[in-house]
Amino acid sequence: MRIVLDAMGSDDCPGPEVQAAVEASQLFGDEIILVGPAAELQRRLNAINSSQSRVRVVDAPETITMEDKGLALALKAKRKGSKTSMAVGIDLVKNQQAEAFVTAGNTGGALATAYYRLGVLPGVERPALTALFPTRSGYCVVTDIGANPDCKPEHLLQFAIMGSEYARRVRGVENPRVGLLSNGEEPGKGNELVKETYPLLEASGLNFIGNVEGKELFGGHADVVVTDGFSGNILLKASEAVGKLIVEELRDQLMGSTRTKIGALLAKPAFAEIKRMMDPGETGAAPLLGINGLVFIGHGRSDAHALVNAIRSARQAVEANLLGSMQTAIQQRLNAAQNVQEVA
Amino acid sequence: MRIVLDAMGSDDCPGPEVQAAVEASQLFGDEIILVGPAAELQRRLNAINSSQSRVRVVDAPETITMEDKGLALALKAKRKGSKTSMAVGIDLVKNQQAEAFVTAGNTGGALATAYYRLGVLPGVERPALTALFPTRSGYCVVTDIGANPDCKPEHLLQFAIMGSEYARRVRGVENPRVGLLSNGEEPGKGNELVKETYPLLEASGLNFIGNVEGKELFGGHADVVVTDGFSGNILLKASEAVGKLIVEELRDQLMGSTRTKIGALLAKPAFAEIKRMMDPGETGAAPLLGINGLVFIGHGRSDAHALVNAIRSARQAVEANLLGSMQTAIQQRLNAAQNVQEVA
Repeated sequence: MRIVLDAMGSDDCPGPEVQAAVEASQLFGDEIILVGPAAELQRRLNAINSSQSRVRVVDAPETITMEDKGLALALKAKRKGSKTSMAVGIDLVKNQQAEAFVTAGNTGGALATAYYRLGVLPGVERPALTALFPTRSGYCVVTDIGANPDCKPEHLLQFAIMGSEYARRVRGVENPRVGLLSNGEEPGKGNELVKETYPLLEASGLNFIGNVEGKELFGGHADVVVTDGFSGNILLKASEAVGKLIVEELRDQLMGSTRTKIGALLAKPAFAEIKRMMDPGETGAAPLLGINGLVFIGHGRSDAHALVNAIRSARQAVEANLLGSMQTAIQQRLNAAQNVQEVA
Repeated sequence: MRIVLDAMGSDDCPGPEVQAAVEASQLFGDEIILVGPAAELQRRLNAINSSQSRVRVVDAPETITMEDKGLALALKAKRKGSKTSMAVGIDLVKNQQAEAFVTAGNTGGALATAYYRLGVLPGVERPALTALFPTRSGYCVVTDIGANPDCKPEHLLQFAIMGSEYARRVRGVENPRVGLLSNGEEPGKGNELVKETYPLLEASGLNFIGNVEGKELFGGHADVVVTDGFSGNILLKASEAVGKLIVEELRDQLMGSTRTKIGALLAKPAFAEIKRMMDPGETGAAPLLGINGLVFIGHGRSDAHALVNAIRSARQAVEANLLGSMQTAIQQRLNAAQNVQEVA
C-alpha cells in the first residue's frame, strides 16, 4: 500500500510529517510518499535514522497555507501542473501511484484541490467534510461539518449514505444508526431542509433513527449524524469552544486555593483521560466524502503521533475498499429512495 | 410592581413556585400573583408562613404540560376564555393588572399563548426565544434559540435590535457587541441567510462586530449573538450536551482510583463553581423578544431559588422599561437599515 503524506500540512510542518512518515512506514510496512520541498525533506530524513523505513520523497516546491482562501485558493487548487504539495500529492492518487492522500493542512484547500483534480463519485453532487465527535460510548461521525453551507435534501441523503458506509467499513459499526440533526426529536420538527430530508432518509433503507439533538449525539445514541455544512460547523465549533471553556474555567478554579491545587494534582490522571477524549489527534483523520479518491484530513495542530493515527485512518479505508463500497451504496440507496418518491 | 408567576410551570410544580412567590414578595416587596388551581395553591400557602408576604392567588384550573404540542397546543393557547395558567396569567398582563409574566413551563406553550394573546410589537414580524450562555467573562445573549426554524434576514435584524436592547437595559451592557453566528469569522462566510443579513446589521447602527463562531461566543467577545432558531437551537442543545458529557466522563474518571477520588474530594469547591456556571437556574429567566408584553421563561428544572432569580429578571425588565425601549429602538434601527438599503 502506498500512502501520500502532505509534508506541508500541520502548523509545525514539516518536522512532525517527516517523523510520522518514518514511524508509519516502519509500523505498517507501507510505502509513505512525503510530498513537499524535496531538498529540505531529504535533509531532515537523513538527520533522523530513517534507513529502515520506506519513505519516498516527491518534490512539490509550493504550499497552500492556512491563509490561502477564496478565488486565489480555487485557482491554486485547479491549475494544471500546480506544484503545491496538495496538488502534487493528490495527482499521485489520481494517477494511481498511491492509494490515499493525507494532510493536516488547510481544509478548504484540500477540499478544493481534491474536488478539482479527482472529481466526485458518480451520483454524488457535493463532497462533504466529516468529523468524529467523542460521545459517551465512543465516537459519532458527523457530516457535513462545513463544505456546503446551503444544502438540498438530496445532498443530505447522499451524505447519510456515505457517512453510514464510512462508519460501517472503516469504523467497524455493523448497522450504523443514522440521525438527522434537528431542533427537536419528534418527526415534524426541523427547518424546511430537515422536514424535506426526513422522508428521503426513511425511504433510503439506511438504519435511520429519526431526528436527533445534542443529547442523542453526545449520549452515543447515533453512529452517524447528518446535517448541512452550516449547522454542522456551528455544532463542531460550539462543541470545541464549550470544551475549552469548561477546561479553562476548571483550571482557574483549581488554582484558586491550596486545597483545590492538591486535589488537582491527585486528580491529574482523570483530567489526562478527559484531555485525551477531547483531543482530535487521537481520532486519526476524517475522509472527504464524495470525492472520487481517498483524501483524509487531520487536525492542523497534529503532531507526529496524530499524523501516524491519520495515516492509520487512511490505510483502514484503503483496506476496507471504502471508495468501492460507497459507490455501490450510493447506487443502491439512491435508487431505493427514488422509487419510493415515484410511488408517492 | 405586580409580577405574575405561573404556578404550574416547573417540573416539580407547584411546590417551588409557591415557595418562590413568598420569598420573592418578601425580598422585592412586590405583589406576586400566583396563577393555578386556587384551592391547592391556597392550601400550600397556608402551610408555609406566608402572612408577611404579598402573594395573591388567581384561579386557573387547567394546565399546559410539557407534553402539549402542535395544533392542540395552539388551540389551547389561542382559545378565548382559556383557563390554562399561562392564558390566565398572560391575560392579566394584557389587561394591565400586572407588569410581567414568568413561567418555567412548556416554552412552546408560553410562546404560543403570548403570541396569540399579546401579539407582537409594531415593526416586529416574529417573536424570538433567548438564552443566556455562560462565557469566559460573563454571559452572552443568544437569540433566536428555537422559535423560528426558518428565518429571513429582516427577522435576524429585528432579533439583533431587540437582543441588543435587552443586553443594554436589563443586563447592563453599555454598548452591546452584536455578533452574527456563522461558519467562519471572515465577512462573506456563511449560508445565504447569513450573507444577506450581514449588510443589514452593518447598516443598523448597532455595535455589529461581524461574524462569530463558538470560540468568540464562549470566549466572551460578543454580548449578543443573533441566529435563526434552527442553528440557535443546535447551538444551545450541543452546548448543554457537551457540558454534560464532560462532567459525566470526569466523574467516571475521578471515581476510577483511590488517588483520584481523594483528589476529587479536595477539588470539590472548584467543581461546585463550574456546576454553578453551567446552571441555567443561576441566570434567571430569558424574555420572549418581540411580544407586546413582558414574558419571561425559566428552565423547566427550576427550583424555588431559580424561580426567584427568574422573577428578578422580569422585574429588572419592568424597571428598565424594556418594552418601551425595544419599541423605540426598533423604529429607529429599522428606518436606518431601510434608508441604507434604499440608497444602495
